[in-house]
Amino acid sequence: MLEISEIFNAAAVLKGVARRTSVIPAPKLRPGCDIYLKTENLQLTGSFKLRGAYYKISQLTEEEKKRGVIACSAGNHAQGVALGATHNGIKSLICLPAGAPLSKVEATKGYGAEVCLVPGVYDDAYARALELQKEHGYCFVHPFDDPKVIAGQGTIGLEILEQMPDVEAVIVPIGGGGLISGVAFAIKTLRPDVKVYGVQSLGAPSMAESLKEGKLCHLNDVSTIADGIAVKEPGVNTFEICNKYVDEVVTVSDDEIAAAILALIEQQKLVAEGAGAVAVAAAMFGKVPVDGLKTVCLVSGGNIDVNTLSRVITRGLSKSGRNFTFIVDLADKPGQLSGVCSVIGNNGGNIISVTHERINTSTAINGCTIRVEIETRDMEHINTIRKALAEANYNVLN
Amino acid sequence: MLEISEIFNAAAVLKGVARRTSVIPAPKLRPGCDIYLKTENLQLTGSFKLRGAYYKISQLTEEEKKRGVIACSAGNHAQGVALGATHNGIKSLICLPAGAPLSKVEATKGYGAEVCLVPGVYDDAYARALELQKEHGYCFVHPFDDPKVIAGQGTIGLEILEQMPDVEAVIVPIGGGGLISGVAFAIKTLRPDVKVYGVQSLGAPSMAESLKEGKLCHLNDVSTIADGIAVKEPGVNTFEICNKYVDEVVTVSDDEIAAAILALIEQQKLVAEGAGAVAVAAAMFGKVPVDGLKTVCLVSGGNIDVNTLSRVITRGLSKSGRNFTFIVDLADKPGQLSGVCSVIGNNGGNIISVTHERINTSTAINGCTIRVEIETRDMEHINTIRKALAEANYNVLN
Repeated sequence: MLEISEIFNAAAVLKGVARRTSVIPAPKLRPGCDIYLKTENLQLTGSFKLRGAYYKISQLTEEEKKRGVIACSAGNHAQGVALGATHNGIKSLICLPAGAPLSKVEATKGYGAEVCLVPGVYDDAYARALELQKEHGYCFVHPFDDPKVIAGQGTIGLEILEQMPDVEAVIVPIGGGGLISGVAFAIKTLRPDVKVYGVQSLGAPSMAESLKEGKLCHLNDVSTIADGIAVKEPGVNTFEICNKYVDEVVTVSDDEIAAAILALIEQQKLVAEGAGAVAVAAAMFGKVPVDGLKTVCLVSGGNIDVNTLSRVITRGLSKSGRNFTFIVDLADKPGQLSGVCSVIGNNGGNIISVTHERINTSTAINGCTIRVEIETRDMEHINTIRKALAEANYNVLN
Repeated sequence: MLEISEIFNAAAVLKGVARRTSVIPAPKLRPGCDIYLKTENLQLTGSFKLRGAYYKISQLTEEEKKRGVIACSAGNHAQGVALGATHNGIKSLICLPAGAPLSKVEATKGYGAEVCLVPGVYDDAYARALELQKEHGYCFVHPFDDPKVIAGQGTIGLEILEQMPDVEAVIVPIGGGGLISGVAFAIKTLRPDVKVYGVQSLGAPSMAESLKEGKLCHLNDVSTIADGIAVKEPGVNTFEICNKYVDEVVTVSDDEIAAAILALIEQQKLVAEGAGAVAVAAAMFGKVPVDGLKTVCLVSGGNIDVNTLSRVITRGLSKSGRNFTFIVDLADKPGQLSGVCSVIGNNGGNIISVTHERINTSTAINGCTIRVEIETRDMEHINTIRKALAEANYNVLN
């Protein structure tokens, strides 16, 4: 079983290896709430996973170290294990599903691991990793359900207590539960008065369901933009620790996660991945009872695919009225497009793209539609432009 | 004239007000270079400007404080002055050009300033601020050419020396020159062996030109995505200090700045505005001789408009092969679009948008073109899809 001395030991081992990431105030994330961020997205490798993986590897016997380690991951754990092994001077082999983003494959190789791309999805890569482990006698580094890994993640709990001794609540993302198990164990052991809340994605609520049922639940499908916490079943150890030490586990939707990612960019100048933003989402949308409490949200990682980030931003811009697409029905005669564009321009709208279509069953035979995507300031600005178009006798269809 | 004791005094005044921002390693920004980032984008108000504005305001006489302060800014200085004044319990009036992004107007109001929106551009707002100052006797807080403001920014130099005593070079953005004047003066006074380089945008090289000419130069036009340093003429004081203390001033292009913004997001999980990223751009693209030196790049701010950020990301994705638009010439018969889409899908391309056009002078009378925008992994992936389309006898036009 986990002991607090093991977490202190992990902290000593990680000194000079893992960064002691800053705790930064985030005063605007939820008015009336005193929120701070523990910025593990600024950790080496871009996520907290380095801590557990490195500590686990450091504690292997000499004989185990000689055999090398193996892990399976499509993301942050891969980079943590790779760097942890390389720093400890031992060999690592990481199985990744063949479709994993090239950037993650390259980063894992860059930290010194050998990469094995397995056709199929995560489960296939996992099965292959187990085969290879048996075949070659590698030591398997589990992404969350290992007491040493949990102890490594628990060092974040120690740091939060040191960096902010008057903390009253901590909000932590949950996938398999390794991170929150370490953090909750450390905090509740040293400071039982501090509340610890867990957050899962609504599309992958395995720990939330398991705690509700009082037993391990297996989800057949998980689907969320927070891919780092899309875990089908919690660990045996992590379930037990969460059951004992975590005050409450809540869920947040993909839209709430996207809003949190955007708020972190705009207000905090920080890039978080989906999984890294769920604690912030829970605070922003009032999912946990922290109003008036000095609260630390753990931003667990920042390894978001830039294509995904681009989509999150675009969606966020639309939702907050800073981007709008008008569809306008026109008589098909010269000067119409220019008329629409000048109304938009005169009202401060910045055109991004225009599509002009003549053939369309929804328009009159001699009509056409144009689709104009513009940058706007806010919802009110959109309404101003909408009104100006109507006053100029243009028929806006949407 | 500026004295080092004034900068130490500013540091004492700013203690507990300005954040002591972290210095974070950035090992991948330029292979072979030992780069660190001083993260003033994580400063309160999202930029270093708070330091100078706050210190200047704190040093006003009681009589001046009673009259209140005025400033003109479309950006970071506005927020710095607003917060500085409010913290010191005095009134502030900020003139902004009427077209300023709503987010900046709201942020400035949010820090307690009264905002005066002036029709026209920055110069109009500046003229109005001077009028109002004369009329009401407000104290004008200059954005850069004031010794107190410069002393406030100089506290960053002290922090860098404390946080990284073995630093060998520092790279600093230049607009009007307030930031680099304070930083260079502090560093060269205490540690003349440390190199200090300045960076301007190629589209607004007023300090670079002035230093070359040996006298103040005025630019008639400035144009850059780094709007925070788009300054037409350096200050009298800042010019003199830069001339004496700065080793070299270089310029970077908008494309280099965009690449630096994207690298900071992907590798460092940090959001920088254009002006905030120029020092990193200079290091990444080898504009300053820092190879082998322990170098701190000052990331001065993170207040980038999200629409701009979205454009920078999109452009960066295209340049690195993670986004591509194919234009394909087709015979206008059923099944063609589906054929193209299945070739793309079978090769792992993720379709973002499709535009199918029949009427087009560049195609055969019975032909049509489709424009398919897809997410790709890299340039090689684009070539794989291009080859597969050619093998399936589709005519890719671009």
